Amino acid sequence: MAPMFEAHVLPRLSPPRGRVVRTRVLHTLGLGESDLAMRLGELMDRTRNPLVGTTASQAVVSCRIRYEGGLAAPEAAALVDRTAREARERIGDYVFGEGQETIQSAVLALLRERGATLATVESCTGGLLGALLTQVPGASAAYLGGWVTYANAMKEREAGVPAALLAPGGPGAVSRDTAEAMARGGRERAGAAYALAITGVAGPDGGSDEKPVGTVWIALAAPGGVRSRRFRFMGPRENIREWSARMALAMLRLDLIGRAELPLLRQVTA
Amino acid sequence: MAPMFEAHVLPRLSPPRGRVVRTRVLHTLGLGESDLAMRLGELMDRTRNPLVGTTASQAVVSCRIRYEGGLAAPEAAALVDRTAREARERIGDYVFGEGQETIQSAVLALLRERGATLATVESCTGGLLGALLTQVPGASAAYLGGWVTYANAMKEREAGVPAALLAPGGPGAVSRDTAEAMARGGRERAGAAYALAITGVAGPDGGSDEKPVGTVWIALAAPGGVRSRRFRFMGPRENIREWSARMALAMLRLDLIGRAELPLLRQVTA
Repeated sequence: MAPMFEAHVLPRLSPPRGRVVRTRVLHTLGLGESDLAMRLGELMDRTRNPLVGTTASQAVVSCRIRYEGGLAAPEAAALVDRTAREARERIGDYVFGEGQETIQSAVLALLRERGATLATVESCTGGLLGALLTQVPGASAAYLGGWVTYANAMKEREAGVPAALLAPGGPGAVSRDTAEAMARGGRERAGAAYALAITGVAGPDGGSDEKPVGTVWIALAAPGGVRSRRFRFMGPRENIREWSARMALAMLRLDLIGRAELPLLRQVTA
Repeated sequence: MAPMFEAHVLPRLSPPRGRVVRTRVLHTLGLGESDLAMRLGELMDRTRNPLVGTTASQAVVSCRIRYEGGLAAPEAAALVDRTAREARERIGDYVFGEGQETIQSAVLALLRERGATLATVESCTGGLLGALLTQVPGASAAYLGGWVTYANAMKEREAGVPAALLAPGGPGAVSRDTAEAMARGGRERAGAAYALAITGVAGPDGGSDEKPVGTVWIALAAPGGVRSRRFRFMGPRENIREWSARMALAMLRLDLIGRAELPLLRQVTA
């Protein structure tokens, strides 16, 4: 498709002669689309040029800045850059990257800068977090690997989750205690600086009044200790899994930039 | 999008009044699109009704059978069913499912029928195989979980790969010996009937003359012993990973249906 797109579609999408187009896209995780719009405020007025808009894809909400007009290219670029700077100031630390960057590439770059390593321990995501991380060429510089502890026996034997947590009457597989034990166990066994653990009810079955479908605990074991957050994600199974993996990366990113206290979208408790 | 599609697009796609449309789609793994067309032969003549065509998506090549005409619905269905039967006969054991079925749902169903369990040990796919398996609701009935042994230290410590295999002068991480050791180690540690292991060069870097980008070893540890195959997949990193995960499932499926000797597309050696 790529050659066809480049030869036949792209030329038709080009601006008319003499018109300059310049675009930048900032990506955020942890805000809703309406939160983002509120922060951007009058930057989003439809009469402005550059135009500022928002788009959402899975948990990632992006801010798109687009100039089209008669300015020379350098002036257009400067104008878009100024708007991007103002947008970043208003959005704050939820911006994780721009353009082709992904949350996984942003997190891996931060880890690499710090010479730190990461391991993963996944239950309901079943390997999706590891798969996202290893989409990035060179991920091996920071990502060591991890465990898919789908069965409870794997959680106990491989991640060192105490059997009492999973036994009847205990907090169960989808709980703060289990998520934190998974993260702690993964961090120790992998010898990693950081470990992320995810355990939740991806559905469509397995939900209860206490733990409805979409309930996900994410824990981060870091050099400074273990933190965890409970989320309630929406939509079908695959959506819940995609959000879980990305929010785990968002948690790690906030920790790495020293903003571990910032709330995240769909988070139910600290 | 779904409600918009149903309200506005679907009606325009419906056949004219009095015309009946009936479709079936058979999915295969392990054949190329041209192999499939050769097997289907004159069933693909463009003058026939039902029309028989092929489509390809990642490693999955599908055969689409579509009747449109003036027959009553039951006769149209019978005609399509007859063509599907004939197509299946010509294609043989490469057909793994139909319609909404995926290779992962087909493999999980076979495992469940046999009361057998599965573990995974992934290097270059980084969790993608586990993520595919756990897309299927109820996967936990057969899939226990596994390891993402991305770093060599994880291969040694967690999957029991002998250090000598990974040391300088040894066969290395991408080799038959390492793939088989990963599968054997995963099977034993998980206490599973079957274990699949994947190790390869997903690129864009890390290739060599001897092991170019796209070289992937896949091993299956089964109750009857360990088998492995070498593949050479094409395209960008994500393509190589997607093909690797699906071909691993195809290998397991052939073993489960007693056809472990059948060759698979892109396979270089047995």
